[in-house]
Amino acid sequence: MSIITLTTDFGIKDGNVGAMKGVIWNIAPQAQIADLSHLITPQNIPEAALIVARAAPYFPADTIHVAVVDPGVGTQRRPIAARLGNQFVVGPDNGVFTMLLENTEKNSQPVQWVHLDQHQFWLENISNVFHGRDIFAPVAGHLASGIPLEKLGSPISDPVRLNFNQPMRTVYGWRGEIIHIDHFGNIHTNIRTEHLQDAKVATIRVCGVNIQGMVRTFGERSSGELIGLFGSNGNLIVSVVNGNAARRLNARLEDRVEIFLEG
Amino acid sequence: MSIITLTTDFGIKDGNVGAMKGVIWNIAPQAQIADLSHLITPQNIPEAALIVARAAPYFPADTIHVAVVDPGVGTQRRPIAARLGNQFVVGPDNGVFTMLLENTEKNSQPVQWVHLDQHQFWLENISNVFHGRDIFAPVAGHLASGIPLEKLGSPISDPVRLNFNQPMRTVYGWRGEIIHIDHFGNIHTNIRTEHLQDAKVATIRVCGVNIQGMVRTFGERSSGELIGLFGSNGNLIVSVVNGNAARRLNARLEDRVEIFLEG
Amino acid sequence: MSIITLTTDFGIKDGNVGAMKGVIWNIAPQAQIADLSHLITPQNIPEAALIVARAAPYFPADTIHVAVVDPGVGTQRRPIAARLGNQFVVGPDNGVFTMLLENTEKNSQPVQWVHLDQHQFWLENISNVFHGRDIFAPVAGHLASGIPLEKLGSPISDPVRLNFNQPMRTVYGWRGEIIHIDHFGNIHTNIRTEHLQDAKVATIRVCGVNIQGMVRTFGERSSGELIGLFGSNGNLIVSVVNGNAARRLNARLEDRVEIFLEG
Repeated sequence: MSIITLTTDFGIKDGNVGAMKGVIWNIAPQAQIADLSHLITPQNIPEAALIVARAAPYFPADTIHVAVVDPGVGTQRRPIAARLGNQFVVGPDNGVFTMLLENTEKNSQPVQWVHLDQHQFWLENISNVFHGRDIFAPVAGHLASGIPLEKLGSPISDPVRLNFNQPMRTVYGWRGEIIHIDHFGNIHTNIRTEHLQDAKVATIRVCGVNIQGMVRTFGERSSGELIGLFGSNGNLIVSVVNGNAARRLNARLEDRVEIFLEG
Repeated sequence: MSIITLTTDFGIKDGNVGAMKGVIWNIAPQAQIADLSHLITPQNIPEAALIVARAAPYFPADTIHVAVVDPGVGTQRRPIAARLGNQFVVGPDNGVFTMLLENTEKNSQPVQWVHLDQHQFWLENISNVFHGRDIFAPVAGHLASGIPLEKLGSPISDPVRLNFNQPMRTVYGWRGEIIHIDHFGNIHTNIRTEHLQDAKVATIRVCGVNIQGMVRTFGERSSGELIGLFGSNGNLIVSVVNGNAARRLNARLEDRVEIFLEG
Repeated sequence: MSIITLTTDFGIKDGNVGAMKGVIWNIAPQAQIADLSHLITPQNIPEAALIVARAAPYFPADTIHVAVVDPGVGTQRRPIAARLGNQFVVGPDNGVFTMLLENTEKNSQPVQWVHLDQHQFWLENISNVFHGRDIFAPVAGHLASGIPLEKLGSPISDPVRLNFNQPMRTVYGWRGEIIHIDHFGNIHTNIRTEHLQDAKVATIRVCGVNIQGMVRTFGERSSGELIGLFGSNGNLIVSVVNGNAARRLNARLEDRVEIFLEG
């Protein structure tokens, strides 16, 4: 039983995700396929990188994560695949796996990249605009059906990496930024438990408002209150209880977030 | 082959549903997983209750329905699971299974609840904000892999129940309310076939308009006509043929609906 | 291992697609089910016809494609099924499979239609408004579990066919129209590689603008540029690099597209 996940900016109306599943099942009829997201903002590679990196650790060993946010499709950008720790990734060489790679390296797990240059594992006809269907889906299918990674392409060690801003230590605490706004309107920052460790947060300043302290979870405050807390992936998030913080604060990606620590 | 359904208010962009599937497949690799809905209005427990209760009867015996609309996550609200008739449910103790429970009781089928208090069946690290991934998904996985319900928690008999308004008999017919507006803009009321039985509807009054009589199906009237009919779950619905009744009438949940019977 | 695809205008909020999956798995527990699209514009049969026809060829032999865009549900319109080449289709007799049928005929593949009139393969209670759940899903399940097509209904040879406009040869090139606007805002026309063959496009005129020549893929031009190219299904499309062409041009279905060929 092999598992494949799909992350794209294709939306869910046009049937393109379905075509990818058909291609996969032609090659690996037993594969279980999970959609991670098909609503990545069009061409937003860092957003896809975040969503893949957050979900991947919850999947079984040998799961194959296909991510296709691919503005460079049909140009010289390489199609690539890798083993990152105990999981596989398949997609364009544009940094979409950077965050998962960084986490793998932090954990000192093995990393092995290939440039997908073995056409016999692709569809016969390759369009210039849909490598998700024509290259990445069949490659994922072959991986799922047992073809070893090293047969699918030539070894490389220089995949494109995105540069994610890290929060900075300040005199009073930490300065970070907004990296994601989720379906509920929760504002996700790049400030994490490992930055704050045991320090106590006095104030969170974001989008012109100050939030005093942090809570453990939503239900500790009343509906409509603005709160700071740790999200389920360890990032500091800002929320409105039973409401939409991003809309309330008119928050945008990359807006600055300041943390003032106690004492 | 075990089947698990998922109903949440998580949306389909952030990858959180995907993480739940990864957790399930780690424990029960053979499980088939169906998304019922991830577009429940945020924190709207009654809406999730309705959607789960409508779809569940169409699934095979022993299907496990996981519903996570969970504003109380991380507080004292209990995580629970149950056998309701020939199906299982897993989720927060906030009433999200009330309608399925009521249907089970109406059919005099067995009901068995447990408070999920056996941590060995959860993920190792439990966040305060995402029990769907950390508690409910692994519990569903263990149920799917054959762990008996009674091993997963301690027996309880007092799950939280929502109070759904019932339509009332009036001098002229029935008075009910709008309980759901679907994707097509059809207006679903809480007045059902079992209320009207063989009585003939003279007029449906809703949002300031009167609709004369009922039809069997959409195609009996012309495009754009406002009609009353029974929906596929036995509820009286109000529709616009090939149009959107809710938008036309500016209908809202809980708006009153009056039925005048003939003679 | 049987594969079933689902294409509907049901949306993904109300749980109706889930109910169809439950019905299928009751009959064919091993079936793999892929959603092609549930965001077909309500009652838009040609749109569903296009999306099914584009995705179907990528699925394995014997895949069963269920399409339910069904404004005539509960009227005299027939429920039908067919073998089209090496695939099956199940749905209402309203033309939703026309484009797949035309492709099958072009390839001189076998075609076999039946009128679904064998009630023993349906659910016991048939609503007047949801044959997707009550007729088409169970029929697909029975096909997936090995019941031969000819047992499910009586042979017919006159399914409803839609009339898709074909592009016309003009003095200067080709005149076609917009047939689809995708998630990215790419404008899909009915002018295809087989119309243009080796002719070189001098100008594409659409929505009041002229685009000079064609490119192979998006990355050949700068962000924001308007381009013409062949989409992944062989149709000429108009795009904005990293942008939304339909919004930029205020494009609508059936808008005229003129191609001027080189000298």
